[in-house]
Amino acid sequence: MTVRQLALPELVAHCVRLGIGGVGLWREPVQEYGLGAAAALVRDAGLTVTSLCRGGFFTADGREADNRAAVDEAAALGTDTLVLVSGGLPAGSRDLPAARARIADGIADLAPYAAERGVRLAIEPLHPMYAADRCAVSTLDQALDLAAPFPAAQVGVVVDTYHVWWDDRAPAAVARAGAEGRLHSFQLADWTTPLPAGVLTGRGQLGDGVIDLAAWCEQVAAAGHTGPVEVELFNEELWQRDGVEVLEETLDRFGEITPRSRTTIPG
Amino acid sequence: MTVRQLALPELVAHCVRLGIGGVGLWREPVQEYGLGAAAALVRDAGLTVTSLCRGGFFTADGREADNRAAVDEAAALGTDTLVLVSGGLPAGSRDLPAARARIADGIADLAPYAAERGVRLAIEPLHPMYAADRCAVSTLDQALDLAAPFPAAQVGVVVDTYHVWWDDRAPAAVARAGAEGRLHSFQLADWTTPLPAGVLTGRGQLGDGVIDLAAWCEQVAAAGHTGPVEVELFNEELWQRDGVEVLEETLDRFGEITPRSRTTIPG
Repeated sequence: MTVRQLALPELVAHCVRLGIGGVGLWREPVQEYGLGAAAALVRDAGLTVTSLCRGGFFTADGREADNRAAVDEAAALGTDTLVLVSGGLPAGSRDLPAARARIADGIADLAPYAAERGVRLAIEPLHPMYAADRCAVSTLDQALDLAAPFPAAQVGVVVDTYHVWWDDRAPAAVARAGAEGRLHSFQLADWTTPLPAGVLTGRGQLGDGVIDLAAWCEQVAAAGHTGPVEVELFNEELWQRDGVEVLEETLDRFGEITPRSRTTIPG
Repeated sequence: MTVRQLALPELVAHCVRLGIGGVGLWREPVQEYGLGAAAALVRDAGLTVTSLCRGGFFTADGREADNRAAVDEAAALGTDTLVLVSGGLPAGSRDLPAARARIADGIADLAPYAAERGVRLAIEPLHPMYAADRCAVSTLDQALDLAAPFPAAQVGVVVDTYHVWWDDRAPAAVARAGAEGRLHSFQLADWTTPLPAGVLTGRGQLGDGVIDLAAWCEQVAAAGHTGPVEVELFNEELWQRDGVEVLEETLDRFGEITPRSRTTIPG
């Protein structure tokens, strides 16, 4: 999604050229390209699919079938991680606890289905500015509490710096996620201001903002995370630029903040 | 600030006419009108000044004199509460813990000065979307932890629904604030989406958004708050409308969410 202006074959080719070993995919471009074709393309190039975005939106009606389809797509792509964006308040509701209870029910419904297909669910807490309309799960601790009833191999969390950087309890929650074996996904994006209208497409290129990304990488590593580090930027300005240039820039920036672990960076 | 299009004498006259017993003021319009004149205007009308906004920004250099001036102005206006917006990251910094330590130092410097003048400080946690550029204090628990070293009569917190509504730990923190005697200020605003660019002027009129404001009023009352309930809306659309109409609408909306306590509503 960081370089959504690149078609899937281009993205894969440039990842290979740049030594980027894995890529996190979103469902829409995969569906457009064709699930089987996308799976073959990535596999034949020797890339890992680090995660699939996304299932969830449990607070809307009738999402069961689509969420199971998301699990099937993850399995077909060979990734073990499906990212969940849980959904905000249902239309007309002001009841956050009820929304969170509904999210818990949705996860309980989906987790066994996913586990049978070798896919683990990764609950992503979104920044509190999305609590109303996208995700009523706003902190890592909330996400970990939602995951707690399930085996760690079935349900864990996403640590996305953009969403949790402000939280003074996040460092302890990262350690908790690691200790519980639930740190299923780690994503980087920087925080820049002013935020754009709608606040969806203002994630900063690594190093352009105020998040101490190097410290986050160290913290997540200290919690035992040895999996991929993803970069997920939704940024209107980056999308207007040449995709290959943005991919190369992102790789450079990634190297600056993680000098000792420049191994994988999904685009 | 909700009806900043009204000049101070207009605001005061309409508060009196509508039976609004108190008003929260901001420093800028008070300074423009003249501190002594503003104090006399409000006092002669029989209104209470519920709070003065604002001091703080402790993470910027050289704010000591201005913060003491804010205390003096609060005392001159006869209000016992100065709201503090603590400040975000200093320019070029990515160190949130350091910013928070600096805020703690600033409060320690200001609290005794304020206490000598009969003014208590009210730390306002701002929504996490302001953590970088306005306020590194993002939750009620953080604000209460910052207040903890001081007597409750010197330093407490502001509960503003717009800033804390998303936080699953806020209800417990409200109870904690009440038990500690630190619930110094309670402010209402609703949460509406989409957020405008810059996210500063999108606070919703009461009832237009997704916050269960009636439940918040009950919760704060249950925590022992018997002080004023303020309405603080920064909203470009409301500012474009006739100020008296907005004031009356706000009073109506306030009555709808607090049917049993329609007593004071500062504009």
